[in-house]
Amino acid sequence: MGAGDLETYLARLRATIDAALDRALRATATPAPLADPMRYAVMAPGKRLRPCLTLASADAVGATLGLTPETATALALPAACAVEMIHSYSLVHDDLPAMDNDAMRRGRPTTHVAFGEGLAILAGDGLLTDAFQVLAASPSPAVDADAPRAAPERIARAVAVLASAAGSTGMAGGQAIDLAAVGRAGAGGSPLDGAALEDMHLRKTGALIRAAATTGAILAGGADEAVLAVDAYARDLGLAFQIIDDVLDVEGTSPDIGKTAGKDAAAGKPTFPALYGLEASKQMATACIDRAVATLERNRLDGRLGGIARWSLRRTR
Amino acid sequence: MGAGDLETYLARLRATIDAALDRALRATATPAPLADPMRYAVMAPGKRLRPCLTLASADAVGATLGLTPETATALALPAACAVEMIHSYSLVHDDLPAMDNDAMRRGRPTTHVAFGEGLAILAGDGLLTDAFQVLAASPSPAVDADAPRAAPERIARAVAVLASAAGSTGMAGGQAIDLAAVGRAGAGGSPLDGAALEDMHLRKTGALIRAAATTGAILAGGADEAVLAVDAYARDLGLAFQIIDDVLDVEGTSPDIGKTAGKDAAAGKPTFPALYGLEASKQMATACIDRAVATLERNRLDGRLGGIARWSLRRTR
Repeated sequence: MGAGDLETYLARLRATIDAALDRALRATATPAPLADPMRYAVMAPGKRLRPCLTLASADAVGATLGLTPETATALALPAACAVEMIHSYSLVHDDLPAMDNDAMRRGRPTTHVAFGEGLAILAGDGLLTDAFQVLAASPSPAVDADAPRAAPERIARAVAVLASAAGSTGMAGGQAIDLAAVGRAGAGGSPLDGAALEDMHLRKTGALIRAAATTGAILAGGADEAVLAVDAYARDLGLAFQIIDDVLDVEGTSPDIGKTAGKDAAAGKPTFPALYGLEASKQMATACIDRAVATLERNRLDGRLGGIARWSLRRTR
Repeated sequence: MGAGDLETYLARLRATIDAALDRALRATATPAPLADPMRYAVMAPGKRLRPCLTLASADAVGATLGLTPETATALALPAACAVEMIHSYSLVHDDLPAMDNDAMRRGRPTTHVAFGEGLAILAGDGLLTDAFQVLAASPSPAVDADAPRAAPERIARAVAVLASAAGSTGMAGGQAIDLAAVGRAGAGGSPLDGAALEDMHLRKTGALIRAAATTGAILAGGADEAVLAVDAYARDLGLAFQIIDDVLDVEGTSPDIGKTAGKDAAAGKPTFPALYGLEASKQMATACIDRAVATLERNRLDGRLGGIARWSLRRTR
């Protein structure tokens, strides 16, 4: 499978996800003052990495169970939307003045700059909460009323997995560790050692990436071994993704990565290059991806998941 | 049934809820910087009205199905905890400087005053997210591993109901309307008319009170008619509760209601007394409670729900 095929595949998934997100956002009787910043935050230009992983995992696991790609997508689409809504909420809240205080994101003013701080906080709250409605409601507002629907026990399990990943032990907890660590770095140093830095990233970005993949596997009906394999794959992918983010922050230029280059280092944020150096960081990312691909092969799960992992090493933003 | 019996009943429910919340908060591997403000927010002194409604509704509905009170409580306790965690999150975020900017709540410094704004935002995010984990996980961290558990389709439905009530069409949406309306009132006037004020409160406080009651009915196994009756009861109760809050803000004194008396009026907030006058507001609250009790009687659902409704009229804070 060539890289062009993968780009075509991902573009198709993104179109499916964007249409479902648009549908889910339209379906609710949200008051206009809140609907506008919520849509602004979700419909920002982006890679849609996490929901693509949800659909690609459902696809790979579904294929082993004899599901058509269309059925696997329909089963997993509510989770894909929920994951992206939660990712969007986290960006809105992370950008707030009391957190990372970012004015620009993906080349546009951040949500609190565009709509004010109060509505930005509420837009994040609304997206986070609505995500669980999109995931759990039958029918889900993200899909047609007659679309295939996962069994209720699969849906309840996906809710628990996603909430655990995004909550205080996962993403929110990782952001709290990050918040506590910022500014404590000496010049050229890092306040977290390697294990603590990896723990922070496994929570802050890794947990949601894992949940994105595993909820797809769960809703497609995967057996426990398949769900665990997808989880191990996504754990390595997520860590590689974070290392590459840190590397791009050092090497990239501002327009290319859509935020201010060198900002992390300037803010005294702990990073992999600060701790291990650039070259060793790149080698770590490659080792993670090799391990992720090996996990897939060992479990006879390929589909596009291996291509997505290798693609993540080549990205420039 | 005397008022003393009801107080004893509610005190027993509160003890059950507090123990389950404590258990749920301990069960997670939350990093310390986040665990502390989360616990501070949830374990604040409070009436626990919403989770008491969850358990009392499960009790009333369960009795019609032959469940023991112990079984009904065990089935509904994860939802009771989830509801109170979501209520606590909403108070933390509403108190933020970008929202209502309150420094005191229930006689203590608000969470952002005690822990800083960044951690307060994250503590709210963590509580909101963890609530869905507590509700959906099997076993729930709020109860014993061998406690009776509701059927998965009931759990998924409760997640959807709770998320819908707390999300952009409900509580978060109501807060956005409130945020947009504050400060637009002329002296002695209100920027929202009666219907708009009622709509705001039905979203901002009413939706979660309704979900508190209905999730109890759903998890206890109630038929659709029973769930709808509990919903209608809670809608009237929630509206009465808000009217009484507004009345207490005018009549109460600061130590008694635990926040600054007259603050709403001073902030130009729309209130029922501002729109209808004090006496008419009190009559509206009484009419709501009469209607709530009539709904229960018509549906042969009493238990303690009627007593809770009548108690809410007598409260002074």
